Amino acid sequence: MASPQAAAIDRLYEYFLTTFGAKPDMGVDEMRDLFEHWCDVGRDPGGVDYLEVDAGGTPCFWAVPKGAAQDRVLIALHGGGCVNGSRFSHRKMYGHIAKAVGCRALIVDYKRAPEHPFPSQPNECLDVYQWVLAQGIAPKHVATIGDSAGGLLATTMVLAARDRGVALPAAIVPLSPWYDMEAVGESYKTNEANDKLISAGLILVIAGMALGTASPREPLANPLFADFRGMPPMYIQVGGYEALLDDSLRVEKLAKAAGVEVKVDVFPEMQHVFQFMAGHAPEADDAVARIGAWLRPRLGLAK
Amino acid sequence: MASPQAAAIDRLYEYFLTTFGAKPDMGVDEMRDLFEHWCDVGRDPGGVDYLEVDAGGTPCFWAVPKGAAQDRVLIALHGGGCVNGSRFSHRKMYGHIAKAVGCRALIVDYKRAPEHPFPSQPNECLDVYQWVLAQGIAPKHVATIGDSAGGLLATTMVLAARDRGVALPAAIVPLSPWYDMEAVGESYKTNEANDKLISAGLILVIAGMALGTASPREPLANPLFADFRGMPPMYIQVGGYEALLDDSLRVEKLAKAAGVEVKVDVFPEMQHVFQFMAGHAPEADDAVARIGAWLRPRLGLAK
Repeated sequence: MASPQAAAIDRLYEYFLTTFGAKPDMGVDEMRDLFEHWCDVGRDPGGVDYLEVDAGGTPCFWAVPKGAAQDRVLIALHGGGCVNGSRFSHRKMYGHIAKAVGCRALIVDYKRAPEHPFPSQPNECLDVYQWVLAQGIAPKHVATIGDSAGGLLATTMVLAARDRGVALPAAIVPLSPWYDMEAVGESYKTNEANDKLISAGLILVIAGMALGTASPREPLANPLFADFRGMPPMYIQVGGYEALLDDSLRVEKLAKAAGVEVKVDVFPEMQHVFQFMAGHAPEADDAVARIGAWLRPRLGLAK
Repeated sequence: MASPQAAAIDRLYEYFLTTFGAKPDMGVDEMRDLFEHWCDVGRDPGGVDYLEVDAGGTPCFWAVPKGAAQDRVLIALHGGGCVNGSRFSHRKMYGHIAKAVGCRALIVDYKRAPEHPFPSQPNECLDVYQWVLAQGIAPKHVATIGDSAGGLLATTMVLAARDRGVALPAAIVPLSPWYDMEAVGESYKTNEANDKLISAGLILVIAGMALGTASPREPLANPLFADFRGMPPMYIQVGGYEALLDDSLRVEKLAKAAGVEVKVDVFPEMQHVFQFMAGHAPEADDAVARIGAWLRPRLGLAK
């Protein structure tokens, strides 16, 4: 059974949807203002510094835990459908994760759709990755991580790197990733009553903004149509109550069939990106600890 | 008339009071969790780094705006009745203020009542001030600033410094300061229907926790009973709808009578610490800009 604390994200998502419902013609700026409050359900981790940096034209936050390994880097890609979210909205969650791994996280404030539709985001994230390598960080000491649309980008930027012959990072950690641009996964039905935020209607609106004129089956926009051969190990976390549950399970199958090491943890009764509640709900703290335990050896850090 | 954006703090305070109302026996930990959400109504300023530091035993955040003067310091004291609040809950607001002034702010996470009642807070804040001076910062390049109970502490720590012969800072900037430990100000009545958070009942409960066994008329706990002679210039901001409005007006009279330079800006229709909405509501941005304009010359910075 979910902890009483985990109800905080239900309340947040109800507030999001009520606010949308009251103003269905809400503009993109107002929607972004609303989604800036995602991390409000979490607590600050403490013991982490936050330093703004211009990563070759992209504004980012370095989240630097006290005593962290300086030569290991998480490229942290926020969610929000490629339309919402920022280095600010996701600061606390990636601060917790950086602390659990014991290295720096670069929280990337990429340009958003619809002003900058696909392929702006995977291209910009790949540029930021190459900026990190240019700082002298070895590819084997980098992991990509992202939530929701950030989980998509953490995956597609590595697919793009592979296609272009760029040295690959050590691992990919998608959290509640959004892959399916057509919103046809079975879990849209089976979790219709359970998911407090995501519905096929919402996803199709956001996908339209994110894709622009691109096909919803373009492999770098929708990895369900991608070839996973040669990809680094993946660790996916997803909530059992998510409409997007099948996005994770379908990519797990695809990637395994292509010979990729994939681990998926389904967290019973959890909502979309429940890890936002780190420092508040035990399920989120458990998930963050598991990210640390899985990533540390893959980045060459002691267990 | 108040801007539509300024309604955000009304909603937050209604949420605070509704949550209290539903659980009147709420413990201090739960109350603190609730008040950690104060800054949720504001936006991140951007262009500010946040660095944790141990200031002689007191955990603090340095808020460091890009390009800020390193040798000028605001000692930023959060509110919450000496019971709630932290370096995290007030990070964004003091980030905005540091940016407007163009110098660093040290957001002080002092030990809280009731575990640490009066005079723990003014003593610890004075210790932090002396730690800042020991870093080589000149007293004339330091200002104290604080909101609500932090406005009290920004005042009392300087009264304590004066009493002990410590060199005084250049200025004091109390925002919606709480001075009156007996909750007898006229504005409790005149603003009873206007103030969305503060009532005499709430203040007397919090005062009991903050004071411990001290008298509510102890001058270093309640500056309405203090001698202001020799104090540095003060700039007070307060909302026109506040139950605590008279706290500011009474201290203005007292300090002026003692020959102190005092300026008070009353912001029409504004709630308690409306500056939390910096980056969101124009009234808060105006207030923050005025703090910058008033403080810069007093800290020897160009206008």
